[in-house]
Amino acid sequence: MERIEHRACFGGSQDVYRHESSALGCAMNFAVYLPPQAERGPCPVLYWLSGLTCTEQNFITKAGAQQFAAEHGVILVAPDTSPRGEGVPDAEGYDLGQGAGFYVDATALPWARHYRMYDYVSRELPELIEANFPATSARGISGHSMGGHGALVIALRNPGRYRSVSAFSPIVAPSQVPWGEKALGAYLGPDREAWKQYDATELVKSATEKLPILIDQGEADEFLESQLQPWRLREAAEAAGHPLVLRMQPGYDHSYYFIASFIGEHIAHHAAALRV
Amino acid sequence: MERIEHRACFGGSQDVYRHESSALGCAMNFAVYLPPQAERGPCPVLYWLSGLTCTEQNFITKAGAQQFAAEHGVILVAPDTSPRGEGVPDAEGYDLGQGAGFYVDATALPWARHYRMYDYVSRELPELIEANFPATSARGISGHSMGGHGALVIALRNPGRYRSVSAFSPIVAPSQVPWGEKALGAYLGPDREAWKQYDATELVKSATEKLPILIDQGEADEFLESQLQPWRLREAAEAAGHPLVLRMQPGYDHSYYFIASFIGEHIAHHAAALRV
Repeated sequence: MERIEHRACFGGSQDVYRHESSALGCAMNFAVYLPPQAERGPCPVLYWLSGLTCTEQNFITKAGAQQFAAEHGVILVAPDTSPRGEGVPDAEGYDLGQGAGFYVDATALPWARHYRMYDYVSRELPELIEANFPATSARGISGHSMGGHGALVIALRNPGRYRSVSAFSPIVAPSQVPWGEKALGAYLGPDREAWKQYDATELVKSATEKLPILIDQGEADEFLESQLQPWRLREAAEAAGHPLVLRMQPGYDHSYYFIASFIGEHIAHHAAALRV
Repeated sequence: MERIEHRACFGGSQDVYRHESSALGCAMNFAVYLPPQAERGPCPVLYWLSGLTCTEQNFITKAGAQQFAAEHGVILVAPDTSPRGEGVPDAEGYDLGQGAGFYVDATALPWARHYRMYDYVSRELPELIEANFPATSARGISGHSMGGHGALVIALRNPGRYRSVSAFSPIVAPSQVPWGEKALGAYLGPDREAWKQYDATELVKSATEKLPILIDQGEADEFLESQLQPWRLREAAEAAGHPLVLRMQPGYDHSYYFIASFIGEHIAHHAAALRV
């Protein structure tokens, strides 16, 4: 593990590391914000999963999250969004292949060897963080768009592993929308039954742990009707008695200007669960 | 004037406009953040001047300033850093030509026709803003690195025109450092006497209006010794009895992580002067 960026930020440090991931079979970057409190003792960790086309950089440069992490004493960890590198398969278009890992463990060729972001984010990365940083095992998870999908799926499938979950503009029902159909079809093959384990709207129907979900969604989001459709998750959560707060935010789009506007409230939401 | 971006942000809107600048003889982009208070009446304006290689985008995507502008009811205006386009002269390297206007009115060829950022920022742009947006004539000015130089020079040369001035990591004595010697030599020619009107350390010696200056400077800034040398301005200000607060910030570098960490305090500093 090599530290490749180190910047003072809001009294703590915004760092980027590079390591060889065994889950993914390639070198990966991840970003870590250490709040000032981490100098005095271990802190809880909020994992952030980014959306299509992003790397570990988008969230740390554009969301303005460090201010609130410093206020609440929370470590922020932001991985890249897929395996990377010359030996890693890729595809034409922004919505499949590198930059579009969809947080699944692929089973279909040519993807199965490297595209294991579910395993990486839910297991390998937290093990690495908790072994090498002043981190407690109190974990929260959040993300944007494809990363909101990843956060919801990973929290719902791992009861007891996360204390809090939230999402911005998530893809809540990938089995039902073009982005998800393309990605899950490629990574998992044509059997739609196998897609259900990566579909938050399916998973919430049978979730044994009723971890409250917070979602913010812009009403002016250009992908709201075609790809996001958060009402699908709301209906499934209501039917299952799963606590969900879905806040429709008038005027906001799909950009980081939207995330920046509400990230403080999300970090406060996580901190309340993580700091107990 | 055409609006080319429009995003909801912290209850207001982060917009980008494109217009034909008469001062510069080319099309220019500038960014405007309108806080929620601007829907109810005119607000004061803080101008932000960016550094080498930047456009109007860097500040609005990375500084996290909108949150504080919304809190204080201040409009933020961020222009590009030079004239742009096919007909505009350019040079090899990042520190001369497009992206490196240095906020001067060039007098030497081939720069004199388009490189008039001093006139653009101090006259044309405020006229445009005050005629087309819900803006009062209360103005503050700030900036980073080359833009900190621009903010200091423009405030010092225009008594009565700005109510507040601050800078992050400014080039305070361009006549004395490599970036400034290269740029002023190219844009103004070899006569160093002409450079003095664009050198804050020279200007502060004879400033008639003692507008208080706030500067934040990172101690781990990679350009501190070679290009910035803020002690030159501090010594000149002390000798002239000009109020200056120079805060050396341990551990911080030259990046937007530094700006983000202290922009809230700068906007509060400006708001206190602008809102009286």
